[in-house]
Amino acid sequence: MDPELELNELRDEVAETTREIIQLIAVRNNLARRIGEVKRQGSLPAVDQKVEDILVDEVIAQCDSSGVDRQVGLKVLSVLLAESKRVQAFQPPKALITPMMMAAKSRQLQAAGKALIRFDVGEPDFHPPKAVVEACSAALSSFKTHYTQTQGIPSLIAALRHYLERKYHYAAKETEVMSTPGGRFGIYTALASTLKEGESAIIIEPNWPAYKEILQNIGGRAITIPTTMEEGWEPSVERIKQAIRPNTKVLLLSYPANPTGMIIAPKKFGEILGVANDHKLTVISDEIYGDYAYKPCPTILSGSAEKFILTASFSKTWAMTGFRVGYTVSSEELIAKMLKFQSLVVTSVPEFIQYGAIKALDSDAEVEENARTMKERIDLACKEIAAISALECATPDGAMYVFPQARSTTFDSSAFAMKLLEEKGVSIAPGTGFGDYQRCFRLSLGNSNEAIAEGIRKIGELLA
Amino acid sequence: MDPELELNELRDEVAETTREIIQLIAVRNNLARRIGEVKRQGSLPAVDQKVEDILVDEVIAQCDSSGVDRQVGLKVLSVLLAESKRVQAFQPPKALITPMMMAAKSRQLQAAGKALIRFDVGEPDFHPPKAVVEACSAALSSFKTHYTQTQGIPSLIAALRHYLERKYHYAAKETEVMSTPGGRFGIYTALASTLKEGESAIIIEPNWPAYKEILQNIGGRAITIPTTMEEGWEPSVERIKQAIRPNTKVLLLSYPANPTGMIIAPKKFGEILGVANDHKLTVISDEIYGDYAYKPCPTILSGSAEKFILTASFSKTWAMTGFRVGYTVSSEELIAKMLKFQSLVVTSVPEFIQYGAIKALDSDAEVEENARTMKERIDLACKEIAAISALECATPDGAMYVFPQARSTTFDSSAFAMKLLEEKGVSIAPGTGFGDYQRCFRLSLGNSNEAIAEGIRKIGELLA
Repeated sequence: MDPELELNELRDEVAETTREIIQLIAVRNNLARRIGEVKRQGSLPAVDQKVEDILVDEVIAQCDSSGVDRQVGLKVLSVLLAESKRVQAFQPPKALITPMMMAAKSRQLQAAGKALIRFDVGEPDFHPPKAVVEACSAALSSFKTHYTQTQGIPSLIAALRHYLERKYHYAAKETEVMSTPGGRFGIYTALASTLKEGESAIIIEPNWPAYKEILQNIGGRAITIPTTMEEGWEPSVERIKQAIRPNTKVLLLSYPANPTGMIIAPKKFGEILGVANDHKLTVISDEIYGDYAYKPCPTILSGSAEKFILTASFSKTWAMTGFRVGYTVSSEELIAKMLKFQSLVVTSVPEFIQYGAIKALDSDAEVEENARTMKERIDLACKEIAAISALECATPDGAMYVFPQARSTTFDSSAFAMKLLEEKGVSIAPGTGFGDYQRCFRLSLGNSNEAIAEGIRKIGELLA
Repeated sequence: MDPELELNELRDEVAETTREIIQLIAVRNNLARRIGEVKRQGSLPAVDQKVEDILVDEVIAQCDSSGVDRQVGLKVLSVLLAESKRVQAFQPPKALITPMMMAAKSRQLQAAGKALIRFDVGEPDFHPPKAVVEACSAALSSFKTHYTQTQGIPSLIAALRHYLERKYHYAAKETEVMSTPGGRFGIYTALASTLKEGESAIIIEPNWPAYKEILQNIGGRAITIPTTMEEGWEPSVERIKQAIRPNTKVLLLSYPANPTGMIIAPKKFGEILGVANDHKLTVISDEIYGDYAYKPCPTILSGSAEKFILTASFSKTWAMTGFRVGYTVSSEELIAKMLKFQSLVVTSVPEFIQYGAIKALDSDAEVEENARTMKERIDLACKEIAAISALECATPDGAMYVFPQARSTTFDSSAFAMKLLEEKGVSIAPGTGFGDYQRCFRLSLGNSNEAIAEGIRKIGELLA
C-alpha cells in the first residue's frame, strides 16, 4: 500500500479515536451532573476522596494492562476529575485565611496609621549578620551586578559545600547543591521536579500553607496526615504507610515544624524515611527552621533516605527574608532538573546577594544568638498562654512560633482573628490556614518580649 | 431510589467510562505506532503540524457540540499528542545551542584561563547608574531586608506609575503595575497567566529562545512567523492573520527585536494589534530593549491593543542584569493573576533592590548615554561586517546586537561557532538558537570598540 495513503487512513482512525475520547468525556460529564444532583438531594458530601482513590487504582491498572504510560493516564484522570467538579457546580470551599493574607491586611491598617502588634507573618525582627550586609554592599560597589551561573557563583557553591561538611559532616559534590531565590522557590522547584499532574505528595498537618498551594498549582494532590496537640503533634508512621497510593511520589517533611515547633524524634524520623524508601518516594525535607532547634533535630542529610531534596533558606535563622535566597541539596540528577526550571524562570539569584550568602554561612555566633533569643520568647509566650484558661499549648521544640489551641471545641479561630485585629489591634494567623485546625492559631514571635506579653494579654482579654 | 445506591451505580458508570477512555488511548497508541512505522518506511517527516492543527479543530468542534469545556479537550489532546510522539519513538530534534549555553561554555573556558572575546550573552558591559547602587546600598544598610508586598513596595509602584506617565503619557492605576524578579520571570508569568496547556501563542522569528522554552514548559504551542533579512526582518500581517487558530490565545511581540534589532513601523504595529483584537488575543509586548531604539519604536502602551501585558526589565538599558528586577503593566485582572503566581513562587523582589529600581527610573542621563554608546558599537560592527565578503547584515534599528547572515546557503552557524571559539577564542550565538536561521549568528555588543573590531576581524579570518 502507498505509504501516503496508509498514513491518511491511519490518521483518520486517530481522529476518530480522538473524537470518541471527547465524546466519552461528555458522557462522563452527564454522569457527573447527575451525581451532583443526587448528592444535593441526599445532602451527601461534594467530594469523596475514596472514590477518587479507587479511580486512580483503576486507571493505573488499565494503563499497565494496555501499555499506556501511567503518567499519561493519571494526567488525563486529573483533567477528568477537575471537569467533573466543574459540571457538578458545587460551591468551592471558602478561601482560607493564610498568614500572608493576614500580613497584607495588617500592612494596610498600619499604612492607614493603626498601631498593631503583629504575630502574623513568619519573619524575625533581628538584623541580618553585619558581615552579610557588608559583603553584599561591597559586592554591589565593586559591580558584582551581572548574570551568574544559575546554580550560583563557584565561590558560593564552594562555601555551601564547606558549610554542609562542617555542620552535618555531609560531603556534597559540586553538582549536588544549588542556590535558590528563597526557600519558597526551592520547594516549588523541588515539587515541580518530582511529581507530575495527577500524582500525589504526602504532607503532615498542620503545615505551611504554601505546600498545598504549590501542589495545587502543579496539579498534584496533597495527601494530608493530620496530627493533634493531644498526641504532641507527632505523626503516625502507620498512617503515613497506609496513606501511600500507587501515584504517590513525594513525602514532604519539615522539622522543626511550622506552626507547631514540633521536632520529631530521630528514631521516628528514621522509620518514616524507611517507609519512603520502601515505596520509592522522594523525601523533600524543608529544614528552614533547622537552627531554631531547642533539642536535637534530625536532618535528611544524616538520614537514610534514598531519594531526597533538602530545601533551606537564609530567611529565618539569619534574618534575611528580604534577600530572597536559599539553597537546596540533592542528587546530581535532581539538582540538574531543578536548575533547568530555575534557569527558565529566574536565571539566578542576584549576584551581589550571593556574596552576602557566602558570609551568612560563616555567621554561627549571630545564628546562635538569634536562636537563644527566640527560645526565650517561646518560653515567655508559653508562660503567658498558660495564664489564659481558655487556651492550651504544647511547648514547641523549635522554630519561632507558638500554636495554642482553644479548649472550646466550637472555637472559630478565623472569626476570632478578625475580631482580635479590629478590637485589640493584634494580628494572628488562624489555624485553618495550616490545615483543619479551627481551634488553633499561630503566633509568630518576631517581636520584643514586651510586645509578646502585651499581645497575648490582649488575646486573653478577648477570650475572657 | 436510595441516593446512596443511585450514587454507587452512577459511580460505577463513571469508572467504566474512565476505563474506556484509557482503552481508547491504548488504541490511539497502537495507531500511532503503526504511523511511526509507515513514516519510517516511507521516509516521511516525523511531525506534520497540519495534521495536529486539524485535530485541534476537530476537538474544539466536538467539545462545542457535546458541551465539554474547550480547555479540557485541548489539554487532553495535548497529552494524547505527546503520548503519540513518545510511542512513535522518533529521535527528538537535536538540542539547539542557545546564547545561555554558549555563555556557560565560555565561562568554563575563562575559568580555565583562556582569554576570550565574548559576543554570546545579551549583557551590557556598562555599570548600573551610580544612584541605583547608592540607593540599594543605603537601603541595605538601613535594613530594608524584609518581606514586602508581592507587587512591590508602594514607593516603587508610585515611581513606576510616575515613570509611565512621564515617558509614555500612560496613566496606570495602582493595580495595573507590578515589579518582577527579572524580565524573564515577567514573561513566564505573563504566558502562564494567559494560556493553558494545549493552547498556542504566535511568536515572530527569529526571537529570544526563552519564548519557546517557556511555552514548552507550560504545555503551550509556539506558532512561529518567520521573517527574513531580505525582507528587512519585517513580519507579514497577512501571515500572522492566517496563522491564528481557534486555540490561539497570545501574540508575543518584541521591538526592538532580539537578535535582529529590527523596529517595526508604528503603522504595521497598529495593524498587527488590530488583528490581535479581532481574534481576542492577549498581546504580550516584551519591551526590554525599548530604550536602545535608534528610531521611534512603538510601545504597546500607546497602541490600541484591547488585552495586553507589557514586560520590561532593568537589565539592559540600565545595565542591571545581576539585580534580577523588571516590571509588567497590564489590566487589573491580569496583574492580579500574575501576582498570584509570583506570590506562590518567589514572594517578592528583594526589598533593598526595589529601592535601587526606584532610582533607575530617574536615571535618564545614564540610559541615554548607554544608548548612544550602543549605537556607535552597532555602526562599528556593521562597518566591520561589511568588510567581510562572506557576510551580509541589515543595520539594526535598535537593541544591542548584530545578526549577520552568511551568503553561503550551506553555512552551518553552530559548527562555525564551535570552531570560532576553539580556534580564535571568539564566542558567538548561532542563529539556530533563535529559530530556523542556520546561516545567521548573533553578536552581543557588550564590549569595547577594540574588542568588537578585533572579534569581527577574527570572524572574517575564519571565513576567509
